[in-house]
Amino acid sequence: MDTLQHEELKYSKYDMAIDTSFWNESYSQKINKWRLEEPIAFLNAFVSTPLVAATQLSIPSHLAYLRNDSFLASLSESTSSRSVASVLFPGFMKNYNHLEALENMDARNALYYALYELLLRPLFFTTYESMQEEECAWNAMSFTSFCVFSFIDGKKFSFRHREAFPSLKLSSPIYVEEAFHGFSNFPLDISACEKIHQFAKERISFKNTPFVCAVEDRDVHFADFSPSMFANMAERHTNVFICFWNFSSRCDRVDSGAKNLFNCLRLALPQLQKFHFLALQGSKDACVYCACTCKQQAIESVERTFQRVVDALNSKDPQCVDWKVLFESNSDPVLKASGWISREDKVENLNSVMNPEERANKGSQCNLQLMKWRAAPNIQLDEIQNCKALLLGTGTLGCNVARNLLMWGVRHITLVDRSTVSYSNLGRQTLFLFEDAKNGTEKCIAGASALRNIIPGVCVTPVSLNIPIPGKRAGADKQELIERVAVLRDLITSHDVVFLLTDSRESRWLPSLLAAAHGTPVINVALGFDSFLVRRHGVVSVTSGSNVVGTDHGEQPLSCYFCKDIYAPSKSQLSSTLDRQCTVTRPGVSSMASALAVEMLASLYQNPAGFRFTCKEELQGNPGCLGIVPSIMRGNIRSYQINHEIEQRSSKCTACSASILNQYHAHGTDFIIKCLEDPCFIEEVCGLKEQRSTDEAALCDTFSDSSSANDN
Amino acid sequence: MDTLQHEELKYSKYDMAIDTSFWNESYSQKINKWRLEEPIAFLNAFVSTPLVAATQLSIPSHLAYLRNDSFLASLSESTSSRSVASVLFPGFMKNYNHLEALENMDARNALYYALYELLLRPLFFTTYESMQEEECAWNAMSFTSFCVFSFIDGKKFSFRHREAFPSLKLSSPIYVEEAFHGFSNFPLDISACEKIHQFAKERISFKNTPFVCAVEDRDVHFADFSPSMFANMAERHTNVFICFWNFSSRCDRVDSGAKNLFNCLRLALPQLQKFHFLALQGSKDACVYCACTCKQQAIESVERTFQRVVDALNSKDPQCVDWKVLFESNSDPVLKASGWISREDKVENLNSVMNPEERANKGSQCNLQLMKWRAAPNIQLDEIQNCKALLLGTGTLGCNVARNLLMWGVRHITLVDRSTVSYSNLGRQTLFLFEDAKNGTEKCIAGASALRNIIPGVCVTPVSLNIPIPGKRAGADKQELIERVAVLRDLITSHDVVFLLTDSRESRWLPSLLAAAHGTPVINVALGFDSFLVRRHGVVSVTSGSNVVGTDHGEQPLSCYFCKDIYAPSKSQLSSTLDRQCTVTRPGVSSMASALAVEMLASLYQNPAGFRFTCKEELQGNPGCLGIVPSIMRGNIRSYQINHEIEQRSSKCTACSASILNQYHAHGTDFIIKCLEDPCFIEEVCGLKEQRSTDEAALCDTFSDSSSANDN
Ligand SMILES: [Zn+2]
Ligand SMILES: [Zn+2]
Ligand SMILES: [Zn+2]
Ligand SMILES: [Zn+2]
Repeated sequence: MDTLQHEELKYSKYDMAIDTSFWNESYSQKINKWRLEEPIAFLNAFVSTPLVAATQLSIPSHLAYLRNDSFLASLSESTSSRSVASVLFPGFMKNYNHLEALENMDARNALYYALYELLLRPLFFTTYESMQEEECAWNAMSFTSFCVFSFIDGKKFSFRHREAFPSLKLSSPIYVEEAFHGFSNFPLDISACEKIHQFAKERISFKNTPFVCAVEDRDVHFADFSPSMFANMAERHTNVFICFWNFSSRCDRVDSGAKNLFNCLRLALPQLQKFHFLALQGSKDACVYCACTCKQQAIESVERTFQRVVDALNSKDPQCVDWKVLFESNSDPVLKASGWISREDKVENLNSVMNPEERANKGSQCNLQLMKWRAAPNIQLDEIQNCKALLLGTGTLGCNVARNLLMWGVRHITLVDRSTVSYSNLGRQTLFLFEDAKNGTEKCIAGASALRNIIPGVCVTPVSLNIPIPGKRAGADKQELIERVAVLRDLITSHDVVFLLTDSRESRWLPSLLAAAHGTPVINVALGFDSFLVRRHGVVSVTSGSNVVGTDHGEQPLSCYFCKDIYAPSKSQLSSTLDRQCTVTRPGVSSMASALAVEMLASLYQNPAGFRFTCKEELQGNPGCLGIVPSIMRGNIRSYQINHEIEQRSSKCTACSASILNQYHAHGTDFIIKCLEDPCFIEEVCGLKEQRSTDEAALCDTFSDSSSANDN
Repeated sequence: MDTLQHEELKYSKYDMAIDTSFWNESYSQKINKWRLEEPIAFLNAFVSTPLVAATQLSIPSHLAYLRNDSFLASLSESTSSRSVASVLFPGFMKNYNHLEALENMDARNALYYALYELLLRPLFFTTYESMQEEECAWNAMSFTSFCVFSFIDGKKFSFRHREAFPSLKLSSPIYVEEAFHGFSNFPLDISACEKIHQFAKERISFKNTPFVCAVEDRDVHFADFSPSMFANMAERHTNVFICFWNFSSRCDRVDSGAKNLFNCLRLALPQLQKFHFLALQGSKDACVYCACTCKQQAIESVERTFQRVVDALNSKDPQCVDWKVLFESNSDPVLKASGWISREDKVENLNSVMNPEERANKGSQCNLQLMKWRAAPNIQLDEIQNCKALLLGTGTLGCNVARNLLMWGVRHITLVDRSTVSYSNLGRQTLFLFEDAKNGTEKCIAGASALRNIIPGVCVTPVSLNIPIPGKRAGADKQELIERVAVLRDLITSHDVVFLLTDSRESRWLPSLLAAAHGTPVINVALGFDSFLVRRHGVVSVTSGSNVVGTDHGEQPLSCYFCKDIYAPSKSQLSSTLDRQCTVTRPGVSSMASALAVEMLASLYQNPAGFRFTCKEELQGNPGCLGIVPSIMRGNIRSYQINHEIEQRSSKCTACSASILNQYHAHGTDFIIKCLEDPCFIEEVCGLKEQRSTDEAALCDTFSDSSSANDN
């Protein structure tokens, strides 16, 4: 700095590099944590130390780097993450809810606030109980710090932002009286210089703060930096230096952290006129010894300003203080703030940068996370989003239910169907495209690929399976039938919820039985022309492998789809007419029923009793944060109404009665095959047959009674 | 036929060629006309005459051809469609509802029935009042006819079918005594032969029936064919011939129509033992003169059989008669039926053959047509399917509404939106794909292409338009604002219904006003977190260009979305927070609301009063075949309920009041621009401002009253 003698001391600026992972994380913070708040979020920037920056292929040390882990507050305390190679600079981020707030931000005031928050706090409490206390406060200061102001457009995944490294400027500058480059040129003993360099190197690995040293020949005294300590040392020694690592890449400048350091010192000691510093770099030749002079500050003016700040802070939140008034009310302001990296806001649109699959997955969950902001702060989304859903049937209902599950963030969906997409499906089965009909693609395959085309990250499994139906003799195909039963059972036991969405009643029987036996919850949807049924089946605890079927609450669980039947389901001998094959319904019926079925699932996941939620509880009304969870809903769009019903399990149900489940637990697939081959057997086991003959006998009695009555 | 002398007369078979257009049409007949019925549908097959078949590049004349116009009954009567080149053979088709019915069909009985239906009817009424009457009956007979039995799998667009050309077989055959090939070889005067050929040629152009001729030297007598006429001629002349065009392509055989002709004649004249025929072909050398002999039929047996048939038909529907019993009850059946083209059913899968776009369009309408079969026989589908729907907003609601419109068969859809697809839209906006978000495609474009990918024939127009919102000074962009207003007005006046589906309240104001002013019906859908609103706006007659706004019924029309407002809508100065930008709703809310909005449209089209359906009518309850049409529905999925409301137009509405509409009719776009630039002006015009100051004065009065009361 020979060239700079008697000139103003010059400073180099910091710059900031922001990784996309930082914006990604700030988006998550916004969605999941800050929501509608605009809190001050404390951050750490990663900066290469001058020890490595100049010598290695590394980020230059004037560049502060923000990454996703910049949000981890614990980083600054953890010593394990510290190294000689990089240090952490503290800072904060303030994200605005409205773009206008960022655009119309009072930039100067924001900078004063940042200076206060990050740097000046210790200055406003001039009287410390002890020198130790003062030292503690000054040691905690970071003379280099930064702030980020931002607005996140969550829909476009674009980030508008501006950054500053706020720095203090006093009304009078600092002049360089003498400067020496490199240890060999210092008017000091070389071994003392070596000692200082070594001390600074060791210190940076746990603490990146300036220190004070006094050199007497070969002897060096070290002390933590504080204004009192500096004054004290300067009183007792001749060669007293403020030492710090210089993060500037230019040897003729010091970094703006040093500027803050000197100006803080001058505010604390307004009478200061002379001081020396050693600006250290990795290379000993790049280190600088400098003697500085400056005008002493107007003490009264400084004290008045400090008092105004203390008064203001006693009555107000620092964020609401008008700092300009405090610092600039006299014609000659005590201090000025500067440090904006750029006058223009920068905009990062990360849509093009990020992995689009990840964005799709994250973006599609966005609306759900936003529920927590206002509408349902207590909603639990993890459970439903981790739920594995089995959809039996991928027709009109299956497509709509899958779409609604996607909307709720469900990412594990298994689609079961054996038919292929036909042209007549196109209007209504909302996952299929013209091409699928043209190619005659299997519905489960076409549905899976449609879901992946929406959210590539969705885990969807197509299963082409013909669900076994009672009343069709297996004959030679018995082995194949046994296998189909096994596949269905494995599907039901490996999922968290079964949606019954097939187009025939008979095909729902076996899944109902298996789900009841294995304790998998069932949501059943059935359509009429202008009406629909959405119901959940009762769920009981099942001790796997045992034949004990009990309820949690000592009361009957809810009924199932078959509980009111008086005949076992059986395949009709005639094929269906076209209008029976295609469910002829008003289109809205399926859309509504599917939506309600998935909303029922969502509500259940918010309910404290979950799927085991029984009649009694339903009647007592114990809703979760999404409201009531009816067990049976019947809707009608002839009258545009929804009615709720409640029903307990029937002891003679063909699918869920204890007698059926016990036989299944005792005999497994053998029992199932027997049922499938002979629906009469089902009626025998569950007691329907016996009841019917009793009923018929009763009916005969009634007739004979009445006829004898006529005779009389 | 020299080789055949003293041998049995041989017959050649017909074959059938079925065009895909025939199956296409039979599918339409099934869906739209037959539905659940299994009627006998009379058809015409197209057959090339022997006049052209042999000489030209034409369909051989033994091939009967079925096309879509085979179903037109009038074809057989229209002379214009007749030509010498082709004739029509009558037949029928019977389509079964169930595949099993076709598979298990009693083939022999079906053939007997076809013989009766197509051929034998005149035989069972042996006594005619006059020879003329008999002639008439026999002239109406077609000795060549066919039947088609089928099952249509409407979902797979596959057609299973079997055909027969039913022919009569008597227990004793016909023998060829003498046969001569070509006019020059005939033992007849050549000019007489020429006369016969010429007569037959002229006759075929209006009537393809056999005739009788008697040749005496050069002189020829012609007569229509009937058994009595034949017997009569044979009594009076030596050389009497039955003449007919021979559709066989082989000159050593006659077609099976001739077989029926001869056997019918033998049944009518059981004592017949000898007859001559001339089998005519286009080429005179291919014509055959043939003298035949046969055993006379057992007259009593024939008469008994005929009597059994007449008795059976007097008590039963021909379709239900057991014909086998009637004809085969004695050990030597009088007649046997034959004529199946093939023993195996044929299956045509037309999915691969037909124009897939057309199939998609037709197939997707199938479910709607099926409604007429059972659920809603009186439903009118044309109006809704021809309706042009304008969707303002192509977000969550727009996508779902468009899908539901597609389901109802609506094929003219205009999508209006100005934003692009973002990743956060993917889960919920059911028309968009991952790729759309990745490419940042405009929503209206992405939506249009999605709809076309479902039904290629859909006529969908994307419009990228920013709907003008009150409260934003146009400034320099005034011309552009005027243009946006004009575009919106043109859209609203050129569509049959407007769906209001935007994501802000303010953007619905101008469309509400324009629709009210121009008489376009509006269906408005709005979402809350777990609630929704679906409502239709009142519609009044508008005399275009006049400023008179009247109602049809002398009563106030229904209210609009803005009728209860006490402030004019105005753009807020702050941008929305993320959760306000993305409509944060439970996913099911949008699915349900969109479905209900479109069901409301469908119901309206079934209502006699249509869109002008007013409060009074709604309260009186005058539903169409789809049930009630509420004017306002509020749904809630916290309690899973739908409530209905009814509301009349407010005289101070900012969008639909007479004062607003009159100003618009008087000043047009100028008035709109003034409103858009200054929402206070809207309040002035509609009288809200005046009302508010009155209300405030009243409020002040209340306070002063109460204070004075306290003083007392
Ligand atoms: Zn230098
Ligand atoms: Zn049950
Ligand atoms: Zn020959
Ligand atoms: Zn209104």
